[in-house]
Amino acid sequence: MGQAVSSSQDKPVRVHFEPFNIVVEAQPGGTVLEAAMEAGVHINASCGGEGFCGKCRVTIEQGRVEGGISEQISAADADAGVRQACLATLVEDVVVRVPVESALDKVALKALAAGSAQVAKLIGAEELKAEGRFDPALAKVVVSAEPPSLSDNRNDVARLLSALREKGESDFVFRFEAIRDLPNAWRDGQWTVTTTILRPVGRKSGRNQVIRVEPGDTSDCNLAVAIDLGTTTVWAQIIDLNSGQVLGTEGDFNAQISFGEDVISRIVHAAKPGGLKRLQEAAVNSINGVLKTLARHTGVSLDDVGMATMAGNTTMTQLFLGVEPKYIRLEPYVPAAAYYPPIKASRFGLELADHAHLLMFPSVASYVGGDVVSGVMGSGMHKDERLTLFIDLGTNGEVVVGNRDWMACAAASAGPAFEGGGIKFGMRASKGAIENFSVNPITGEPAIITVGKAKPKGICGSGLIATVAALLLAGIIDERGHYNLERGLPRVRQGEDGPEYVLAWAGDTQIGRDLTLTEMDIDNLLRAKGAMYAAYMTLLEGVGLTIHDLERVILAGGFGQSINLERAIMIGLMPELPLERFTFVGNGSLLGARLVAMSNQLRTEVGDIVDKMTNFELSVAPGYMGNYTGSQFFPHTEGKQLFPRTWEHMQEARRALKEIG
Amino acid sequence: MGQAVSSSQDKPVRVHFEPFNIVVEAQPGGTVLEAAMEAGVHINASCGGEGFCGKCRVTIEQGRVEGGISEQISAADADAGVRQACLATLVEDVVVRVPVESALDKVALKALAAGSAQVAKLIGAEELKAEGRFDPALAKVVVSAEPPSLSDNRNDVARLLSALREKGESDFVFRFEAIRDLPNAWRDGQWTVTTTILRPVGRKSGRNQVIRVEPGDTSDCNLAVAIDLGTTTVWAQIIDLNSGQVLGTEGDFNAQISFGEDVISRIVHAAKPGGLKRLQEAAVNSINGVLKTLARHTGVSLDDVGMATMAGNTTMTQLFLGVEPKYIRLEPYVPAAAYYPPIKASRFGLELADHAHLLMFPSVASYVGGDVVSGVMGSGMHKDERLTLFIDLGTNGEVVVGNRDWMACAAASAGPAFEGGGIKFGMRASKGAIENFSVNPITGEPAIITVGKAKPKGICGSGLIATVAALLLAGIIDERGHYNLERGLPRVRQGEDGPEYVLAWAGDTQIGRDLTLTEMDIDNLLRAKGAMYAAYMTLLEGVGLTIHDLERVILAGGFGQSINLERAIMIGLMPELPLERFTFVGNGSLLGARLVAMSNQLRTEVGDIVDKMTNFELSVAPGYMGNYTGSQFFPHTEGKQLFPRTWEHMQEARRALKEIG
Repeated sequence: MGQAVSSSQDKPVRVHFEPFNIVVEAQPGGTVLEAAMEAGVHINASCGGEGFCGKCRVTIEQGRVEGGISEQISAADADAGVRQACLATLVEDVVVRVPVESALDKVALKALAAGSAQVAKLIGAEELKAEGRFDPALAKVVVSAEPPSLSDNRNDVARLLSALREKGESDFVFRFEAIRDLPNAWRDGQWTVTTTILRPVGRKSGRNQVIRVEPGDTSDCNLAVAIDLGTTTVWAQIIDLNSGQVLGTEGDFNAQISFGEDVISRIVHAAKPGGLKRLQEAAVNSINGVLKTLARHTGVSLDDVGMATMAGNTTMTQLFLGVEPKYIRLEPYVPAAAYYPPIKASRFGLELADHAHLLMFPSVASYVGGDVVSGVMGSGMHKDERLTLFIDLGTNGEVVVGNRDWMACAAASAGPAFEGGGIKFGMRASKGAIENFSVNPITGEPAIITVGKAKPKGICGSGLIATVAALLLAGIIDERGHYNLERGLPRVRQGEDGPEYVLAWAGDTQIGRDLTLTEMDIDNLLRAKGAMYAAYMTLLEGVGLTIHDLERVILAGGFGQSINLERAIMIGLMPELPLERFTFVGNGSLLGARLVAMSNQLRTEVGDIVDKMTNFELSVAPGYMGNYTGSQFFPHTEGKQLFPRTWEHMQEARRALKEIG
Repeated sequence: MGQAVSSSQDKPVRVHFEPFNIVVEAQPGGTVLEAAMEAGVHINASCGGEGFCGKCRVTIEQGRVEGGISEQISAADADAGVRQACLATLVEDVVVRVPVESALDKVALKALAAGSAQVAKLIGAEELKAEGRFDPALAKVVVSAEPPSLSDNRNDVARLLSALREKGESDFVFRFEAIRDLPNAWRDGQWTVTTTILRPVGRKSGRNQVIRVEPGDTSDCNLAVAIDLGTTTVWAQIIDLNSGQVLGTEGDFNAQISFGEDVISRIVHAAKPGGLKRLQEAAVNSINGVLKTLARHTGVSLDDVGMATMAGNTTMTQLFLGVEPKYIRLEPYVPAAAYYPPIKASRFGLELADHAHLLMFPSVASYVGGDVVSGVMGSGMHKDERLTLFIDLGTNGEVVVGNRDWMACAAASAGPAFEGGGIKFGMRASKGAIENFSVNPITGEPAIITVGKAKPKGICGSGLIATVAALLLAGIIDERGHYNLERGLPRVRQGEDGPEYVLAWAGDTQIGRDLTLTEMDIDNLLRAKGAMYAAYMTLLEGVGLTIHDLERVILAGGFGQSINLERAIMIGLMPELPLERFTFVGNGSLLGARLVAMSNQLRTEVGDIVDKMTNFELSVAPGYMGNYTGSQFFPHTEGKQLFPRTWEHMQEARRALKEIG
């Protein structure tokens, strides 16, 4: 079985929305507005969840919520159960009545009911232990010996090797510094020393490397850090290699951002005088900062960290290591290496002890990097017989198709739309970014939820997908992404950049001007999602399979977790499959880095994955251009065949609108 | 066969000494006095060879010499063929008449005729090539590849590995820096690169390490340096690994001398604050200086040196590497390690290119170091079936006994007498040191030769051996090393430190006072040579053999080359064996380091030597104390059995003296 297994969640509460008779399960602590959006129930709401617009009034008919009362609600209304949906927090099962402008809303809106993929329970130390695979590459072995005498005055290393052999350990090479420290360690430890051993990756004929010796028994403290080196953020975890416990997790922005938001602009910057060094230092400083925070929060000393596992895309990997990245960008897109040897972490400026070694995830290709390998390994698809599609959604969406027998991968040139790039009011998923959206199909009035429940100031990737899906279903945009200006909706207008939809009026925003979604924005999304979908199709066709053969879809990346799956299918970004076939693994890089720190067997499997994976350059792959063209449509030019459920939904919605119209 | 083979010398000249009718072969360019001393012919000479005392007058009866005339010789005498023996240089066969004080000198002096051991012709690149063993551990392999394309955009390392496989090369690990430099090297070299490969030592399951990549074809330049890291001096050679040619040899004093003359005082200094670092830097600076001189004299760039092989004793090794040396000195004398991994040379401050690796010779024990292993390897005794005694004479004389099947070694606590230590006027073999000596057995008048032919200022090890042997044979000291004061010789007297012999009167010296050899000095030599001889005996007895079983004796070390073998046997320092069984290998460390640079097979054999060699701690070895006590006699308490030839000589000399007396 794979590394990602289904999970039990915190006990959800049931939220029953009337008059639609829609019931949804939601997490306690979420708001009624969030649950409504999840259910596809539209409630007007224009302030992002901050509570000041007062439009999202609902009535709690049964059960209890917390909060939801502000000066916008009169005492009498409050007594009658009226609450602001954006402020009312779920604590138990409730029945919520939504004021509707028309009973016909019901028909159209029901079609938007969102599905929810499983959030995988990630494999951890317990599972690895149960399977006999908890075997960290970094081991501490304590040995004792008789003191030397004139009749046995072998050298200190020979004495250590004998003692290690008695413990069943053999086949060693010594790091010079371990030899250097050994004479005093033996004597200071009164002929007991702790050796720190870095195991070889099993698939190669390597040897155990003694990287450190310490006097006495220090085996109770053996730590590793797992690092996800992302283009935008860096994340790190400290792992106790004795227990497998993750002692803490911290993240921060990758300071390289100030030299460019995406990998291409970083590569361009690296070509400037001193650029590569600046980028290298920026990444290292970001990681060092996260590690320091981790150490402070967990109370451990970074000097006790003997191993750092790291996963990043190919550009991030080469920038971190200071390896010339420019050929990643230039056709024919050649990375420097798949594998890097374990290297002293301090060699690159990581503020870890001298003996700590860096294990970098290998890359498959210039745009299929260690982050993807890490995610694939973490998802376990390389051990699963089911045909699986692995999607890492980001600037360059990476796609892997295969199972335990074979794997094909490709980087889709999706562009930065999913990260808010190329979108007029696009932004990252930070405070004030619209991240969820619904729309009243009759009036065109929206409900928006922002990150941090702040006044809106832009829209992020998941918001973009939700918005386009909702506008599409409401007939406000058509399948080619063009606005329907004829309906005369107040929020749909001709703007300075062409037709646009007003997500929030100036007064409701932080930016003091109308926050809009333009047709050009939609076109960017169309091209991005088309590139992704064409990649799935091309990889599958390359091995004589189709979308319908997929038995499992794994979504990796922080972004993957925040998107509404049903809406992503609706716009044609995700293949239309039963929702239960989808699994989120969250931050695949960090997951993989953590697992590799815990299990040398998994570290070995990483090599198997890289060796097994065939990279396709889509720009020259047969059929890709046709697939791409066919995907320039919501959800697809072959919508009826490839997206039958969505196609049916849209027909249904269109009919309902026509009846009203 | 072994690595040391007999040599042909420069064509010698014949020097016929009358009235003794002794003929000796000597090297052209040497002086008549040196030839006389070699022949055992005594000529009074007290100024060390500078020519100012004028005592060493001889007459050239046939043939021609160069020089030999100063203001001490009248024109008439000069015309008659009179020359000063210390200034007359040999150019052709000559007959030399020595003025004798008594015809009976002849009898006694003849007994002193010195034997000469073979100077081994050292094995070099030609012999290695003929035997198929010229295979340097450092190889440059040039490969070319097709440029990448979209249909073949493997990473740069994968492309290199394919190209290397086509050349029959496989099983690689990459040094990180080689990966780092590869992207630009491939492209700058237009898809031709030169890889520098460090081979694994064959006996272990290692892999080829790619330590450097360069654009284009740089294979015409592949250099190594071989370094002898001695306690007193450092020597280095630059070797062209393509041809095997030694491009140059340079040496200098080890600057560690200012922190102590012997290894013990260095270890003591290392224990002071900052001491180890100071010693490490001193050695490194000395070597860097020698390397710079080498580069200047040979016109090569040190950046092209990819490998440094180094041999030194265990203390020198640990001090150079910065490894705590104190346990070498403390009982039970434990070194840190036998083997050190190949390490980046710049790691220790050697001013070589970043990719250059240091291959350090392994040690067997605290006082049997890499210098001995190197010498043994260079001598080839580990491949020879003959029972061989290997002697490295220095502060701690190291001794190895064995053959291709087994080897036993020990360090004899000989003390510093052979290097002039513990001797009242002892000094190193530098200018003004008495290095050879003969004495008129009747008058007790000496002939002395000094290093550099300068006025004497002290006596070095070889001078000490020659002096004691001559005084012993002349009956001026007895077999216990006591002076015979009863003969009333003017140079034998009671001094402030007890009985002593005046080697040079104050006026004949640089130091302005009588230069003497005291009984305490002789006793120091007696103990030192006894320690050596007892070591030979004890090692042989340990395997049921005796001195008489020895088929070969190899003398290593610069000192070994300058001693007069017959005189070393006479005092019991060397075992009495036919002289043709002795071989000098000169600087065994440098020889071994050079051979290892040229031959990875020999590098592998080094490991075999270390693994094969059994170290004996003499202080606890059975029989050692008895052997030591028996050796406290010139030549030995069992002189008649162990030194029959010497014993007979001495009897003969005693009889001759008695006849005169």
